[in-house]
Amino acid sequence: MSAATTPPHGRRWPVAVLGATGAVGQTFIRLLQGHPWFTVAEVAASSRSAGRSYRDATRWLEGPMPAEIAELPVRACTPDEVLSPIVFSALDSSAAGEVEPLFAAAGRLVLSNAKNYRMAPDVPLVVPDVNADHMGVLAAQRRARNWKGAIVTNANCAATVAAMALAPLHRAFGLRRLFMTTMQAVSGAGYPGVPSLDILGNVIPFIADEEPKIEAELPKILGGLDGHGGFAFAPFGVSAQANRVAVEHGHTACLSMEFATRPTVEQATAALEAWRGPEGVRGLPSAPERPVILADAPDRPQARRDVNAGRGMSVTVGRLREDPLLHLRMVALGHNTVVGAAGASILNAEWLAARGMLDA
Amino acid sequence: MSAATTPPHGRRWPVAVLGATGAVGQTFIRLLQGHPWFTVAEVAASSRSAGRSYRDATRWLEGPMPAEIAELPVRACTPDEVLSPIVFSALDSSAAGEVEPLFAAAGRLVLSNAKNYRMAPDVPLVVPDVNADHMGVLAAQRRARNWKGAIVTNANCAATVAAMALAPLHRAFGLRRLFMTTMQAVSGAGYPGVPSLDILGNVIPFIADEEPKIEAELPKILGGLDGHGGFAFAPFGVSAQANRVAVEHGHTACLSMEFATRPTVEQATAALEAWRGPEGVRGLPSAPERPVILADAPDRPQARRDVNAGRGMSVTVGRLREDPLLHLRMVALGHNTVVGAAGASILNAEWLAARGMLDA
Amino acid sequence: MSAATTPPHGRRWPVAVLGATGAVGQTFIRLLQGHPWFTVAEVAASSRSAGRSYRDATRWLEGPMPAEIAELPVRACTPDEVLSPIVFSALDSSAAGEVEPLFAAAGRLVLSNAKNYRMAPDVPLVVPDVNADHMGVLAAQRRARNWKGAIVTNANCAATVAAMALAPLHRAFGLRRLFMTTMQAVSGAGYPGVPSLDILGNVIPFIADEEPKIEAELPKILGGLDGHGGFAFAPFGVSAQANRVAVEHGHTACLSMEFATRPTVEQATAALEAWRGPEGVRGLPSAPERPVILADAPDRPQARRDVNAGRGMSVTVGRLREDPLLHLRMVALGHNTVVGAAGASILNAEWLAARGMLDA
Amino acid sequence: MSAATTPPHGRRWPVAVLGATGAVGQTFIRLLQGHPWFTVAEVAASSRSAGRSYRDATRWLEGPMPAEIAELPVRACTPDEVLSPIVFSALDSSAAGEVEPLFAAAGRLVLSNAKNYRMAPDVPLVVPDVNADHMGVLAAQRRARNWKGAIVTNANCAATVAAMALAPLHRAFGLRRLFMTTMQAVSGAGYPGVPSLDILGNVIPFIADEEPKIEAELPKILGGLDGHGGFAFAPFGVSAQANRVAVEHGHTACLSMEFATRPTVEQATAALEAWRGPEGVRGLPSAPERPVILADAPDRPQARRDVNAGRGMSVTVGRLREDPLLHLRMVALGHNTVVGAAGASILNAEWLAARGMLDA
Repeated sequence: MSAATTPPHGRRWPVAVLGATGAVGQTFIRLLQGHPWFTVAEVAASSRSAGRSYRDATRWLEGPMPAEIAELPVRACTPDEVLSPIVFSALDSSAAGEVEPLFAAAGRLVLSNAKNYRMAPDVPLVVPDVNADHMGVLAAQRRARNWKGAIVTNANCAATVAAMALAPLHRAFGLRRLFMTTMQAVSGAGYPGVPSLDILGNVIPFIADEEPKIEAELPKILGGLDGHGGFAFAPFGVSAQANRVAVEHGHTACLSMEFATRPTVEQATAALEAWRGPEGVRGLPSAPERPVILADAPDRPQARRDVNAGRGMSVTVGRLREDPLLHLRMVALGHNTVVGAAGASILNAEWLAARGMLDA
Repeated sequence: MSAATTPPHGRRWPVAVLGATGAVGQTFIRLLQGHPWFTVAEVAASSRSAGRSYRDATRWLEGPMPAEIAELPVRACTPDEVLSPIVFSALDSSAAGEVEPLFAAAGRLVLSNAKNYRMAPDVPLVVPDVNADHMGVLAAQRRARNWKGAIVTNANCAATVAAMALAPLHRAFGLRRLFMTTMQAVSGAGYPGVPSLDILGNVIPFIADEEPKIEAELPKILGGLDGHGGFAFAPFGVSAQANRVAVEHGHTACLSMEFATRPTVEQATAALEAWRGPEGVRGLPSAPERPVILADAPDRPQARRDVNAGRGMSVTVGRLREDPLLHLRMVALGHNTVVGAAGASILNAEWLAARGMLDA
Repeated sequence: MSAATTPPHGRRWPVAVLGATGAVGQTFIRLLQGHPWFTVAEVAASSRSAGRSYRDATRWLEGPMPAEIAELPVRACTPDEVLSPIVFSALDSSAAGEVEPLFAAAGRLVLSNAKNYRMAPDVPLVVPDVNADHMGVLAAQRRARNWKGAIVTNANCAATVAAMALAPLHRAFGLRRLFMTTMQAVSGAGYPGVPSLDILGNVIPFIADEEPKIEAELPKILGGLDGHGGFAFAPFGVSAQANRVAVEHGHTACLSMEFATRPTVEQATAALEAWRGPEGVRGLPSAPERPVILADAPDRPQARRDVNAGRGMSVTVGRLREDPLLHLRMVALGHNTVVGAAGASILNAEWLAARGMLDA
Repeated sequence: MSAATTPPHGRRWPVAVLGATGAVGQTFIRLLQGHPWFTVAEVAASSRSAGRSYRDATRWLEGPMPAEIAELPVRACTPDEVLSPIVFSALDSSAAGEVEPLFAAAGRLVLSNAKNYRMAPDVPLVVPDVNADHMGVLAAQRRARNWKGAIVTNANCAATVAAMALAPLHRAFGLRRLFMTTMQAVSGAGYPGVPSLDILGNVIPFIADEEPKIEAELPKILGGLDGHGGFAFAPFGVSAQANRVAVEHGHTACLSMEFATRPTVEQATAALEAWRGPEGVRGLPSAPERPVILADAPDRPQARRDVNAGRGMSVTVGRLREDPLLHLRMVALGHNTVVGAAGASILNAEWLAARGMLDA
């Protein structure tokens, strides 16, 4: 897997993490530890943290804090203070709307987890193992906005899990209608996030603003390019119901699907088993060997047992069976803070690096 | 509420609980404590327990064991040993199929939680606040089977929660299609039931045999009588997906619904708010004041916070809103071992007692 | 139980709750619902909430909000705005230090959950079923501070559970040394309190400032009066280790004890079984029938199963056995927000009301 | 770390796992995957499983089942059917008492997790990072029992965690008295083990037979050899209280300690920091770099966050501070199924292999 370990053109890139002290920011730092192409050179956060060391400014949540990051000074989130050419944004949507364009205008490549620009007509919304080709609109984005840099977004965590599981079936049979009920982990709400009194022994059948995001993003992700620098949304409708459950990591989704061409369970199984994701993604450092893994056992996938499949970058699918009302049903599970957030951003950056698009 | 506190005809009935040592059996005993009409006179269980005192034979799960039950001898599950005219059956389906007819043949009224006879064409499957009128087939049942007694079943716990929430809408607008995803409590699996290593921090997207039960039972419960001693199933289809979550009590269901007549959210809200259940059920000792309670807050119902509404006999409904693909969506929650099991059986017995059908 | 239902002197008292919107404040309001002597006439909170209705200002946590409270205006926490003669304080310690004396100076009886004045030499620290007689210092308090009213505190929640369980043994055998390790519920940290990412599937072996409170308060609570208007602390030492666990309500404590006179297990059991608490407390509306309940089963007490014993006002004790190093060991469990917080305050107020001390 | 990767004498050993289908057996198989010296050649279980493939006989609990094991036939637990020279026993104590001596008599080295022979006067009870030198009694064991093989036991999981944390302090200051309260993970009870209805939102203050094991084993583990082929127990007393909590993996212990020589917190910290375990253990394949890790943060160690330190072979210690009654207090945490069970057995086998004691 030489492609993965030798950086393209023999160079390493310094990268910055915006919003580095929060839960998603920490996931970026954990995933970038020992990355073969990227080095975390800068961390930035709100003015409240700026000026302190990362160690002092951060309540670190999982495992040991990487020693090489602990002493980095926390910078303010401006292109004057943060100089890295690649910028991973874990900013809240309240800050991202203003901050991310400043970096793009200053020539940086911004890989954003925030929702602000996901649905913009010239911004790619990329789940790399599904639609890395949407990067093709970046030239139009730069022209339209007069940016030297660019903004690439990744999707809502639950939409990502569903998109990964649906991609092979949509490609083969044409998704037309989707009912989707999610059971989402508490880490999706960040830290401190969900109070324990709300979730111990409980299900909360509501996550603010989550269902509209899922319903809007899926047709964009699973759609194509319109040939004129824009997007052609996939022609299916989505009804999503989102729930919070007492799980640490891993969003589970129950899916009921109708297709343009009704597949048998065997045909759908074959499509899922054959799927390896887009050509240019395979072999990248963060790409999983298999984007979609089919669970054997009848009671899988399970959040605690399958969340780390493919180092958190694979989605596990199980219980594929006929639906009494539509065509097929299945259950999908993926790691909401890895493939559903920071991991997707990093893989997007790798895809761009491998194509030489970081050297522009 | 004199109807509730004075037994009809001024008498009390002795009742027996079959399968009394298990989780559902214990719920019967807890709910019957202090009952105004019924006295637990006999407890019965498998031959392994028979002959011991109830205290010795039982690993009691919740609160203190009622003192007046503790010293009862555990009897074998035969009509020769158990003499009460009313028999609540908490038997496993492996035993219920054989045992329950023996009691019915011996002239007893059997109120069963087991699945065995739920779908039989002459056995009522009754969620009392929905279809107590289905008791009307009992005369045909007795004739057909040559029983002096009878079997009345109550429904699967998740089907019960859905049926309670759907009844007012189905009556008003005619349900045509239902997508339903459940998040079910561990108490639904009995004791010892779900191992903690399986469910802590996890979701299990599979409950054996649960989805077919929900899909089959709902059209029977929400249907009517055919006028010839049988049932007229309601003409809707169901797709159910069942999940186990780390909740003690309370099944949550996300419902997407299509109707014969599309209601607005306001019309559906009005139908739910106006609903008080069937005439003859109101005022019975175990009947809730309101079978369906509409939650105000946008993040309700919640298992831990709403499960005991109406002493566990009400179903709480929330998040009623439009569905992008069908007509409406909502979330329903109910207590799986009370309204979803033992409580429904007891209310069924009360209904029959109030009608004088126990004196036959 | 006429004493409990007829208010002394035939009157009802209006009461106020300070800090009414928080978790402890809500517990006060829930417990005072339907109280035979006290009516919640006023609710007060920080200036941020003042002026709104209680319904609007409060994220209500458990069950339905009492309708008669929902429309009360939230007042500022000053004696000019809050006029009730009895004031239950659920204030944070950051506010209680300043606010509570203002009310006491204005002639109100303040029953406080805050830590600020617990260890003051003229302030009673009362677990009513243990040391209601400590109220005897109130005359000295009023003289010393020139207050027309008074401050009565109740104890830290974990100290309360231990004091209740230890009182019968200390009275009989003279406690000399105590090792105590707690496993405390998340509701002890208020709301939002403990983030779910911190506690799901976890134990946090640290609760800020908890161990010193337990170690300091227990000798005061279990001590007596010095005959000169002050307290005579009990002559025992305490080593406390406090842990947070994934439990909603109920603090569990493992206790190892050494006494002046070594009791046998039988003697200690007899002392616990005979205990009914102080004379003047029995029969008060909130007093439990038995302050200490001995669990039979070898694996009890358990937080979820025993927390509501005596409507949350009893402490359940189990596993009394010899200690290989000291004399005896046992496990105690009590409801941290009822007997360990709001319930104790209310019972203290009842004790004072029954003695005519509210009419001064 | 060449010692770790090159097998001594250049050879690999085939090993067998007895009780391979249960929870501890699975942990053996998971930990032995890719082991540099040992190859799992045989799996054995009760006669109920014998004859089936491992895949068919096993409900695999964590991650994917190693492919090279899945097709192994499950053998009966007899030395005629199981031929490997090294035998890891994950047998229940009901089977271990009879089975393990048969293997030892047949010349096999048995590394046992069962309690049966732990306290025998000629059987080493070894926590390798504490008392690997206890293997010195094996010659006497063979003589006394006329065995060609031998039995080496590892300790109770909670005793192991405590022994690891205490060893550096006991060596330096001489432990004299220990109060220990544990909060133990559900995986310690095996599978299906603790029912979820018992532990969700709960603490169970009782684990059958656990406290006597801890109290008996610790003085043996932390003691020495008597110079005559037997053991010299360490002269300290232990009072242990054991609790079950809703944690998947990781036993937490709160310890209060008295020593022959009272250390300051600084001296104890220095002893813990300097500790690297016995000479001959360091560098073995499963040996952690540091047997004891000192946590910095005031609220650590935490089960979920620290359980995998040193790949589950390190114990994390925190909150070292003065004890108001004895000398010092601290909290220790370790992985109950790795260092506390299968991992210790494997490290014991490595120690014996490195010394050439497997070639006898």
